[in-house]
Amino acid sequence: MRAVDLIRKKREGLSLSEAEIATFVTAATTGAWPDYQLSAMLMAIVCRGMSAAETSALTAAMAHSGSILTLDDLPGRKVDKHSTGGVGDKTSLILAPLAAACGVIVPMMAGRGLGHTGGTYDKLKAIPGFHLGLTQEAFHRALHRVGCAIMGQTAEFAPADRILYALRDVTGTVESLPLICSSIMSKKLAEGIDALVLDVKCGCGAFMKDRSSALELARSLFAIGTAQGLQIEALVTDMNQPLGRAVGNALEVREALDTLRGRGPRDVQDLSVQLAARMVRLAGKAASLGDAEAQVLDALHSGRGLERLRAIVTEQGGDPHCLDDSRLLPTASHRHLVTATCPGFVTEVHAERIGKATMLLGAGRERVQDPIDPAVGALLAVKVGDEIPVGAPLVEIHYNDPQRLQAALPLLTDAFRVEPTPPPLPSLILDILE
Amino acid sequence: MRAVDLIRKKREGLSLSEAEIATFVTAATTGAWPDYQLSAMLMAIVCRGMSAAETSALTAAMAHSGSILTLDDLPGRKVDKHSTGGVGDKTSLILAPLAAACGVIVPMMAGRGLGHTGGTYDKLKAIPGFHLGLTQEAFHRALHRVGCAIMGQTAEFAPADRILYALRDVTGTVESLPLICSSIMSKKLAEGIDALVLDVKCGCGAFMKDRSSALELARSLFAIGTAQGLQIEALVTDMNQPLGRAVGNALEVREALDTLRGRGPRDVQDLSVQLAARMVRLAGKAASLGDAEAQVLDALHSGRGLERLRAIVTEQGGDPHCLDDSRLLPTASHRHLVTATCPGFVTEVHAERIGKATMLLGAGRERVQDPIDPAVGALLAVKVGDEIPVGAPLVEIHYNDPQRLQAALPLLTDAFRVEPTPPPLPSLILDILE
Repeated sequence: MRAVDLIRKKREGLSLSEAEIATFVTAATTGAWPDYQLSAMLMAIVCRGMSAAETSALTAAMAHSGSILTLDDLPGRKVDKHSTGGVGDKTSLILAPLAAACGVIVPMMAGRGLGHTGGTYDKLKAIPGFHLGLTQEAFHRALHRVGCAIMGQTAEFAPADRILYALRDVTGTVESLPLICSSIMSKKLAEGIDALVLDVKCGCGAFMKDRSSALELARSLFAIGTAQGLQIEALVTDMNQPLGRAVGNALEVREALDTLRGRGPRDVQDLSVQLAARMVRLAGKAASLGDAEAQVLDALHSGRGLERLRAIVTEQGGDPHCLDDSRLLPTASHRHLVTATCPGFVTEVHAERIGKATMLLGAGRERVQDPIDPAVGALLAVKVGDEIPVGAPLVEIHYNDPQRLQAALPLLTDAFRVEPTPPPLPSLILDILE
Repeated sequence: MRAVDLIRKKREGLSLSEAEIATFVTAATTGAWPDYQLSAMLMAIVCRGMSAAETSALTAAMAHSGSILTLDDLPGRKVDKHSTGGVGDKTSLILAPLAAACGVIVPMMAGRGLGHTGGTYDKLKAIPGFHLGLTQEAFHRALHRVGCAIMGQTAEFAPADRILYALRDVTGTVESLPLICSSIMSKKLAEGIDALVLDVKCGCGAFMKDRSSALELARSLFAIGTAQGLQIEALVTDMNQPLGRAVGNALEVREALDTLRGRGPRDVQDLSVQLAARMVRLAGKAASLGDAEAQVLDALHSGRGLERLRAIVTEQGGDPHCLDDSRLLPTASHRHLVTATCPGFVTEVHAERIGKATMLLGAGRERVQDPIDPAVGALLAVKVGDEIPVGAPLVEIHYNDPQRLQAALPLLTDAFRVEPTPPPLPSLILDILE
């Protein structure tokens, strides 16, 4: 099959066969097609779309472009959670130990943050010594011993996705449902899991800005996962305001620890428990969702979740004392308080602007190669619906570099809206696919 | 303007501004954008299309990516003819000297044949010594002295087109009206002409297979040329059967010479006279088309057309004795006759199959770098509508390599259909835009 014939076929809006898609993915992985043919095919896919069967075949081919973990020797079902990316989303740090404490095997590959959204990889790196560059053997051993292990994405898993994503980034071919879905699911398939809980974020701080497109993404991910033999449950959740109050890596680790002690913000706890409970049910450890929720809440309130996180941190080389003394976590040298200029009800805490502002402070990266400052970020003093007097604190900025503060401030002050009448309170969970 | 932003803009179906299109074309010419970004933009253009204004801007930018001839010191209007490519189309060799004999300045850049269609460049190269690699100075001097000069396309004219075409060829982005039109018209604009007669071929032997798509191409070329300040007339002409009886470079030169002696096939003479007359009228040398036709026919029957071709050949280093003794032209060593297996009326002489067969004999090239055998080709013994007995000759194949004959034979025998009832006679000229 000549490259140009396959490209023309997709350009004309025809469906590619499984073998034709495999040819394309293999060519991307091995370099058999030059970049200009790959990018022409990517643009044809963006413009003409792909059927569910094509997207599923693309996902499978990308997963099989590298190693796929085999975890069959571990007893029980392996379940992971994936979020499509938001601001202040530290649920992985909470639900992974909670689910593991309930007997679920949780093999997790953690992504790095990009743009205004954070990544679990960067949050865990804020814990001194925590090592995510596990070999397959070390990952396997950790799962055996602790029931949960978290590693960074490496070149050995789904290399076709890395190659194609780098090309998409510079050729205007990022925004495409089949390409987005296959990128996400190929990496999950490489984890060797049996089931997956998806948290599809929706709102100004998410990739999908409105509910219908978020639901479309959720349905597409659901369909691909199911076609590839995974059991899937998917939630569409609000990402118009950040989740919880902490945004920034070490700040979010602190909030995750608070949550595992039962003292976290309500939305963080609710979403973490809901997602963990679905993992427990998918693992076959509970008869009903209510039963699963009760188990997760028991793990939370008994402290078994926190102890499981301690075991994970210890197993992966992190300093377990950080969990008891959060001063051992990276701390920014300066604080700046933004206060309300009028009294009223908080009607907006704009997740995207806060995410961009914390990125500018150094908490995130604009380009893949940018370094991260784990200490900096923002602590929100208010959530949507709060009634506040004039002069009330809105957000405490943790920063190290005054120049970066100046760059971030306009976005942060612009992130809040205070109005005379109370807003409708937003729902956290918008849709459920199961 | 970042490449990725321009690509995304076109991908979303928005119109690019003149400045944005110029950025793209300059980047293609200088290499400022890597190939993978150029090909992503090309595919976005194929999928999303371009408005008339965008296509015109693209054409102008491509024309200005290299030299543009300035012929202002030559008295009178400069007029060229362009054909979109067919089988057996040797009209350029006839109409250029006829128009020049009527006082038109004819600066012609001749293309090479590709695939099943022939090119004027290759036909002229069949004349021993004929030199098409003229410098701009030599071209200019020849125009001064003879009124017509013909050169091959070189890297100095519309280099952006060469670069983009090479990329389109390997990325499945050839079939796109704005890209096809801008490629054609940018090279014509570089000739420094005032007016252009277009011959848009239509049928199985042409790029455009049906009349509506040929008419669409004609209208689009007409619109671009007009927007760029050229006076344009366009004909849509039949290319279901080859034009004339000779297909193959030296064979076509012989037929062109016959036509200039008034002994050519009817369709070749009619189309050549019609196109030349329009050039004469566009040059302002005739009050009406009827007047122009009379002038051209006079040039033909008086022998002034043939004498003008002799002057052109002599000026460009060719052997003028070839015009009188066609044995001096390249001649194939072998002949093979294909005859009719049943009596009846010839209802089809399939131009594409005959074009492909002669390409396989060596008369054309599959790839740009393939060599040409100027001697080989096919002489048709019949045209659509002829009534023939069983065993009548259909085509005489001129070949040098028996293996190539074997490859070409099935296509050639498959090119003819003989049926009991006479077919409707095809019109040569289908549409006229003026």
